[in-house]
Amino acid sequence: MGRREGGGRSGRGAQRQAAGPQQLTWRQVRNPYRPVAVLSDDQVEAIHRAALRILEELGIEVMSDQALDRLAAGGAEVERASGLVRFDRGLVEQALASAPDRFTMTPRNPARALELGGDAAIFGLVNGPPFVTDLDRGRRDGNFADYQDLLRLGQSLNIVQYVTHQSVAPMDLPAETRYLDCYQAILTLTDKAFYAAATGRERVEDALEMVALASGTDREALRDRPSIFSVINVNSPRRLDGPLSEGLIALAEHGQPAVVTPFCLMGAMTPVTLAAALAQQHAEALAGVVLTQLVRPGAPVVYGGFTSNVDLRSGAPAFGTPEYAKASMAAGQLARLVGLPYRSSNANASTSVDAQAAYESMMSLWGSLMGGAHMLHHGAGWLEGGLVASFEKLVLDAELLQNMAEFLTPIAVDDDSLAFEAMAEVGPGGHFFGTAHTLARYETAFYQPLISDWRNFESWQEAGAKTATERANALWKRLLADYQPPPLDEGRREALAAYVARRKEQAGRLAA
Amino acid sequence: MGRREGGGRSGRGAQRQAAGPQQLTWRQVRNPYRPVAVLSDDQVEAIHRAALRILEELGIEVMSDQALDRLAAGGAEVERASGLVRFDRGLVEQALASAPDRFTMTPRNPARALELGGDAAIFGLVNGPPFVTDLDRGRRDGNFADYQDLLRLGQSLNIVQYVTHQSVAPMDLPAETRYLDCYQAILTLTDKAFYAAATGRERVEDALEMVALASGTDREALRDRPSIFSVINVNSPRRLDGPLSEGLIALAEHGQPAVVTPFCLMGAMTPVTLAAALAQQHAEALAGVVLTQLVRPGAPVVYGGFTSNVDLRSGAPAFGTPEYAKASMAAGQLARLVGLPYRSSNANASTSVDAQAAYESMMSLWGSLMGGAHMLHHGAGWLEGGLVASFEKLVLDAELLQNMAEFLTPIAVDDDSLAFEAMAEVGPGGHFFGTAHTLARYETAFYQPLISDWRNFESWQEAGAKTATERANALWKRLLADYQPPPLDEGRREALAAYVARRKEQAGRLAA
Repeated sequence: MGRREGGGRSGRGAQRQAAGPQQLTWRQVRNPYRPVAVLSDDQVEAIHRAALRILEELGIEVMSDQALDRLAAGGAEVERASGLVRFDRGLVEQALASAPDRFTMTPRNPARALELGGDAAIFGLVNGPPFVTDLDRGRRDGNFADYQDLLRLGQSLNIVQYVTHQSVAPMDLPAETRYLDCYQAILTLTDKAFYAAATGRERVEDALEMVALASGTDREALRDRPSIFSVINVNSPRRLDGPLSEGLIALAEHGQPAVVTPFCLMGAMTPVTLAAALAQQHAEALAGVVLTQLVRPGAPVVYGGFTSNVDLRSGAPAFGTPEYAKASMAAGQLARLVGLPYRSSNANASTSVDAQAAYESMMSLWGSLMGGAHMLHHGAGWLEGGLVASFEKLVLDAELLQNMAEFLTPIAVDDDSLAFEAMAEVGPGGHFFGTAHTLARYETAFYQPLISDWRNFESWQEAGAKTATERANALWKRLLADYQPPPLDEGRREALAAYVARRKEQAGRLAA
Repeated sequence: MGRREGGGRSGRGAQRQAAGPQQLTWRQVRNPYRPVAVLSDDQVEAIHRAALRILEELGIEVMSDQALDRLAAGGAEVERASGLVRFDRGLVEQALASAPDRFTMTPRNPARALELGGDAAIFGLVNGPPFVTDLDRGRRDGNFADYQDLLRLGQSLNIVQYVTHQSVAPMDLPAETRYLDCYQAILTLTDKAFYAAATGRERVEDALEMVALASGTDREALRDRPSIFSVINVNSPRRLDGPLSEGLIALAEHGQPAVVTPFCLMGAMTPVTLAAALAQQHAEALAGVVLTQLVRPGAPVVYGGFTSNVDLRSGAPAFGTPEYAKASMAAGQLARLVGLPYRSSNANASTSVDAQAAYESMMSLWGSLMGGAHMLHHGAGWLEGGLVASFEKLVLDAELLQNMAEFLTPIAVDDDSLAFEAMAEVGPGGHFFGTAHTLARYETAFYQPLISDWRNFESWQEAGAKTATERANALWKRLLADYQPPPLDEGRREALAAYVARRKEQAGRLAA
């Protein structure tokens, strides 16, 4: 009958809410579990072989002479007229032999350094939306004030482990130089790992210069010490554009990680079948990996998976679907086959921060993390297929990420945790609230959520009958009110400001 | 920069919504993936040994003379005064040797038969809540009209594969005989597998009599052909109550599955540590398994896991937590160690059908299904820690279950799905919308959701800016409007009515 399963809940939860949630402490997330295999070993091999055939027979278009030069010099077959590059499998194998399977990201505050690869994973802030939204102010164009607030939240939430140069696009700043303002904001408002722009060489080099200034060192000292990273999207099918090719080259030259991520919407940018999408993604990612290793053997590079589907009846992209979860796990298998760290994302296509946003994000998170992802991009704040950065979604995602981080904490099994004596102490039908074993573990036994409300219906109603999204709204406001910038030497702060001013002036002269 | 990842979505989604969602077809869900191991093999063994020690040294209180007689006759050490029963490991091993690892549930419509065990899983309707809620009418006492509507939804949704005798408690009917009205409703409004009451022998026997009448057969013909099943909750710690002991005996005698499920809220009914909770759950479940096998060796029995935590600061129960997900996976490992089918649940503690309800349910579903669950109880409709059956949550859960069923559909990898020719046809930067490969798979390539809305913001706003929960509200109303009862021979329908009338009359005479 299950009659005890719905059993009584007390109304004693009220004081916890008033005291406010406590966050998980800053931590290196480690994934102790064997990833889920959605493909057999034979299937993984078949997809890898199909990708090698795509690289050998169909090739990848590369829209940069610099990149074509490097590829031709490295032994790829380059058609100059079309920009088409074909890669034989020996070239791919050579690249895979030199690319590392893990590295450490070291931001300006070395206490925030994090490993990426092996069992170590890292979670990031949303990047790229042109719009921003919250419950109070609604959906609006991205702007620098909101951008800075998103950074402040990213700094405040321990589970958000890296911040992004464009958590929302600050449309109110001049397009050509806004990245400099964003870099300056990152390096003054946060001290976490820094996800930079890579559309062209100078955005990469400016990021490195500025990290060096904020760290009191120089750019040369950062070589081969990953301090920034960026996604290099392949414009699927089979096209790597000019600015991103050159950004990739700049990252690799400096030993900074390029996260090569084909953008594979099945039915639009790839065939509708998952096997084909994975083969195409794999080929496109490997092409980028080869280029990094020709530029600098041993340069860190991440295998990016971003395969989802469109609604074939409308053309609308979909995220956090069953296909997305399977693709995320399969991509992890392919990344492990070639020995590279693996990037996936916390994606959803909901237009509001509702149950759909939550379940699609959960499909993404389980697919990604049980797929063995080492880098979870767009980890917090992504809404509406990436068109919108949402303040409430950012806090909701922090809750989901904390849930996953706790899920990834292994179970202890020893005499102490098996607690035979405590069980002997409590008779049949008794309870364990007051036992010494419980009291000793009272504060830390279980995960304490950020926004989940476990109070009974009456207490919840008395407190205003707020949804999880409304509770998230209250929490981001409190986090912003409580925000404290991380320490930064005044001289370094001034050096950053001077650098940005000088670079803007140069840009102005070039434009004139 | 990830600039294409938020890429444009078209506004062409409107017509799909008007046409209405299509459901997944009726199917046997099979789980092709290796379950996630959150415990090492050594840890599983250590917990199993700890459970055997609990059974040998501490024992289980059994509050039924009939059950104590069976246990004593079978070789357990029975203390008559306290009702405490101690089980040596030989007795446990003997029971595990005779209990089957899988079976088939055959309801009155044999086309609805489903396997349970091995790679085969089955999803059920919520059971047990005293309250019911929906967006229009709010939270109210359970009643027979809502009960019947919940059954109609359970019948209409293909992904809900079994229905329950108390999807909500019909508080407006006399307590002693309402189960008869519920059984009659199940057997007339649905033709799916039937989850019966097991608080005492007569509720089990009435269920079997009524299934026999609805099937045009007799009770003897149903022996060893599982047609009904029920949960036998252990009142943790270490107590099996009288009515459920006798219900278990009746189920086992007739070869109907008992789902032995300790109710383990860590910190209240078990020690706060997961290892201890699992050891206690395992001991309690094994005690019930032994009793089934002493009654009838070979009787089907399911290992039930229901371990979650309380909020130690308030005493409120929590579900769909990281601890719950880990416990669900660990319980699957323990069930596989002892070779029994495994039951878990789709639980959450939210007071409204919001993002929390969705993410806690997703934690439960991923924990359960990637834990290898064969029976997902409370699969659709459970809200507020099981106190409330929700119409909108039922539809939301159907969406989540369909997502999981599609996730569990393996990826095809062959020449056709690898689609090399289609890729050769589309040049770099092109698109696959119009290729023959896409057009041939247009209708069936991807999962079509029930309530997910993938339209762009403007179309969504024009359509009323509805949340997923509001869309679920519209869908259950349409499903109820479209509901068709399954065929039932008029003579059998009359026989059921006559049986219920007679049994109520008998109950009235007894009460008088």
